[in-house]
Amino acid sequence: MSLRTVASKFVELCSQGKNFDVMRTMYEPNIVSVEGDGKETVGQGPVIKKSEDWVADKTFHGETVAGPFFNGATPDQFAVYFTLDVTPKSTGRRITLQEVGVYTVKNDKITREQFFYDGDH
Amino acid sequence: MSLRTVASKFVELCSQGKNFDVMRTMYEPNIVSVEGDGKETVGQGPVIKKSEDWVADKTFHGETVAGPFFNGATPDQFAVYFTLDVTPKSTGRRITLQEVGVYTVKNDKITREQFFYDGDH
Repeated sequence: MSLRTVASKFVELCSQGKNFDVMRTMYEPNIVSVEGDGKETVGQGPVIKKSEDWVADKTFHGETVAGPFFNGATPDQFAVYFTLDVTPKSTGRRITLQEVGVYTVKNDKITREQFFYDGDH
Repeated sequence: MSLRTVASKFVELCSQGKNFDVMRTMYEPNIVSVEGDGKETVGQGPVIKKSEDWVADKTFHGETVAGPFFNGATPDQFAVYFTLDVTPKSTGRRITLQEVGVYTVKNDKITREQFFYDGDH
């Protein structure tokens, strides 16, 4: 597969709300996930657990995914722009979170994800 | 100024359509601009010229800018998501272009911009 094929499959699955299918089938076992504060989580299991924990204290209404986007200077990467429509259980207030994700692909698997956003997510 | 201050000023000016003000006042003289195909343009003058050429063969209806977004692992960078509402004069067909921009800041000036998108822009 090409980077473009992997990236298109990623966006297709996310657009269907199948983010956990992405993590289970497209992540390399030693994936590194970097949150907005710079904190790294290493390994497919811990990264899935991080997302499960994130979802657990929210009502998730939906998401949009724009992309994938490419740049020839970094030919193993693609970028996307997410909006996440959620209600944190702690506040009960529905909000839209926005973030840019930059994904690195090697041997058809995602090896690194880096999220850019503002404030707590 | 902090990265956050520079990034906020950038988004504020772009949201007002003042992209050329950004280039004239916030770009470092030796800025490197990397287009989607990986091609680099070096220097404030050439980068401004590149944008002037880009605008010249389009009718520009407006833009939106989401962000700025941050990641602690790359503390000298911010990311934004643009939508550009344009009609290329060659086709006469109005389209919305999307792109992610990743900007590097040093000493309060933008030293590098890298654009991620899909297809011709």
